[in-house]
Amino acid sequence: MSPSPSPTAEQRRAVELLRSEKRFLLAGHVRPDGDCLGAQAALARVLISLGKQVVIYNPDPPGPEFSRIADPCPFLAFEGGEVPEHDVCVLLDINDLDRCAELAIPLRAAPSRKMIVDHHPHEGEPWWDAAFVDITASATGLLVWRIAQALGVRLDDVAADAVFISLVTDTGWFRYSNTDAETMAVASELIERGVRPAEVYGQLYQQNTASEPKALGAMLQRLEYFAEGRLAVLDQPLSGVGPLVDSDALLDIVRSVGNVEVVLFLKEIEDGICKLSARSKSSYDVNALARRFGGGGHVKASGATIRGKLAEVKDRLIVAAVEGFATAVDGRSKANGEAG
Amino acid sequence: MSPSPSPTAEQRRAVELLRSEKRFLLAGHVRPDGDCLGAQAALARVLISLGKQVVIYNPDPPGPEFSRIADPCPFLAFEGGEVPEHDVCVLLDINDLDRCAELAIPLRAAPSRKMIVDHHPHEGEPWWDAAFVDITASATGLLVWRIAQALGVRLDDVAADAVFISLVTDTGWFRYSNTDAETMAVASELIERGVRPAEVYGQLYQQNTASEPKALGAMLQRLEYFAEGRLAVLDQPLSGVGPLVDSDALLDIVRSVGNVEVVLFLKEIEDGICKLSARSKSSYDVNALARRFGGGGHVKASGATIRGKLAEVKDRLIVAAVEGFATAVDGRSKANGEAG
Repeated sequence: MSPSPSPTAEQRRAVELLRSEKRFLLAGHVRPDGDCLGAQAALARVLISLGKQVVIYNPDPPGPEFSRIADPCPFLAFEGGEVPEHDVCVLLDINDLDRCAELAIPLRAAPSRKMIVDHHPHEGEPWWDAAFVDITASATGLLVWRIAQALGVRLDDVAADAVFISLVTDTGWFRYSNTDAETMAVASELIERGVRPAEVYGQLYQQNTASEPKALGAMLQRLEYFAEGRLAVLDQPLSGVGPLVDSDALLDIVRSVGNVEVVLFLKEIEDGICKLSARSKSSYDVNALARRFGGGGHVKASGATIRGKLAEVKDRLIVAAVEGFATAVDGRSKANGEAG
Repeated sequence: MSPSPSPTAEQRRAVELLRSEKRFLLAGHVRPDGDCLGAQAALARVLISLGKQVVIYNPDPPGPEFSRIADPCPFLAFEGGEVPEHDVCVLLDINDLDRCAELAIPLRAAPSRKMIVDHHPHEGEPWWDAAFVDITASATGLLVWRIAQALGVRLDDVAADAVFISLVTDTGWFRYSNTDAETMAVASELIERGVRPAEVYGQLYQQNTASEPKALGAMLQRLEYFAEGRLAVLDQPLSGVGPLVDSDALLDIVRSVGNVEVVLFLKEIEDGICKLSARSKSSYDVNALARRFGGGGHVKASGATIRGKLAEVKDRLIVAAVEGFATAVDGRSKANGEAG
């Protein structure tokens, strides 16, 4: 029994296009993450098992931690020029060709039909020929699972690993609020057919170098709090704190402090250029904060590349972030007032 | 359809004892963890829903991070003296009364029948009257789930949260190799009936104090490697490194190093008494290592309380652990030799 909802009419039409056509080009976004790559690898294996021709093009190659699913699949990094002739171009984990960078040019020019398989919200009119979209799905890989069910294809080992990698990437390994019953039920079926979670975890997240823990420890010594402990700030100068550390691990540790709502990680990547990663645990909108510095992203996770010396950028950022708390409180009082 | 195996004859007898008797005392181990507490809370709610009398006694009270499941349940910390009259004493997450510390005395003296619900291996003859044991189960809480199924009881909100807390505690939030298809299928059903993973995660793991990240950072500076980087050792003296840190977070960071197979964390908890937490990422058996120091646990996660000064205990431990690598290699060669 499938734990997933039945496909909608639009989704069934997309599945029919996959079933009826022959030559597919799967495309994804710049710096493809585990959900994009997992969804692409899984769909590629499903289509190949049906005798289709498949190539996968992304603006950037898969990271080495994804070799388990990338090596047995036809992944190519676009380096300009033409793409092969194809009947259907399937965009996975995006709904906008602009996110394919330069790869968008030959894709737009190609006379292929365009399909999207995605779980992101889309603003504006649909521009595609077919879509398998569900913005409530935890991962794009989960949609490929549903497509395989609809096509009656049993996932092979690579495709099973690939869907699992999609799920764990976009749910923060089953910790985020998008971790729903379907996600866990599909994970259960994937394990049943051979996926080994500990092995996948090891390959994705346990390949750090021996110097990483001490570098992380040194970074944590630099932690500062503001706004009565609700704002946590980490900065990493160009030189002096050893190698670059895994930002996700670092941000996770700081987020584990009960009182912390917002974490800012400011890294000097070149002399006079700083990179900001901002995370929120509360209703504080770090997208709005990042936009003030020329960046953007989501309400709970955003980033920006900011010109200026580290110390100076940091000061400006802290002032703006602390102001954000004041605004948020004002906003809340006002909303309450209006409601009352 | 239940994702769990049907109960064995012995398990069915244990379920019948739960169904037929009236007064229950549930007991657990010293410093009860999320699996022990989750299994106790879930079984308590199941039995109470059947009109039974239930008290839960542990040598130590539940930590504040478990208030979600502990507050609505009859948890008591044993402080010496008598325990209430009861028909059945159920030990959860242990199979040895000695692990109940002083609480073992009145439990042994009581004329009650003794049952164990556990997933740990047991050496020697069974000493209990009834048992619901499966050493392949990822968590003791999973066994309580199976018991509830066998009793035909639908878990209430507290019991659902409690089983979920058991599962995530003993699988390292679904990352360890014991994360099987049943575990994920049960997690799916628990989410279906209202458990919110992100909320549970926040309560269990994001309540640290503001000083935690720096303390963690200071501990990471003390990291040492042995056995060509396959063994990582952390030690924490009684004084000098600030407050005690979250061992799990610390061990996770060290385990993320690709080359590391075994992590030992040695904490001086009193003058002349050290507590060891040992974790393995490979086939290295840290249960065997812990047993050499009077402790035990699982192959991949074990612990021991060791008498001696920190520096001296650490030296002995490193020698024994390095020896373990040699033995493991020998064992492997021998096995290969025999197979060939």
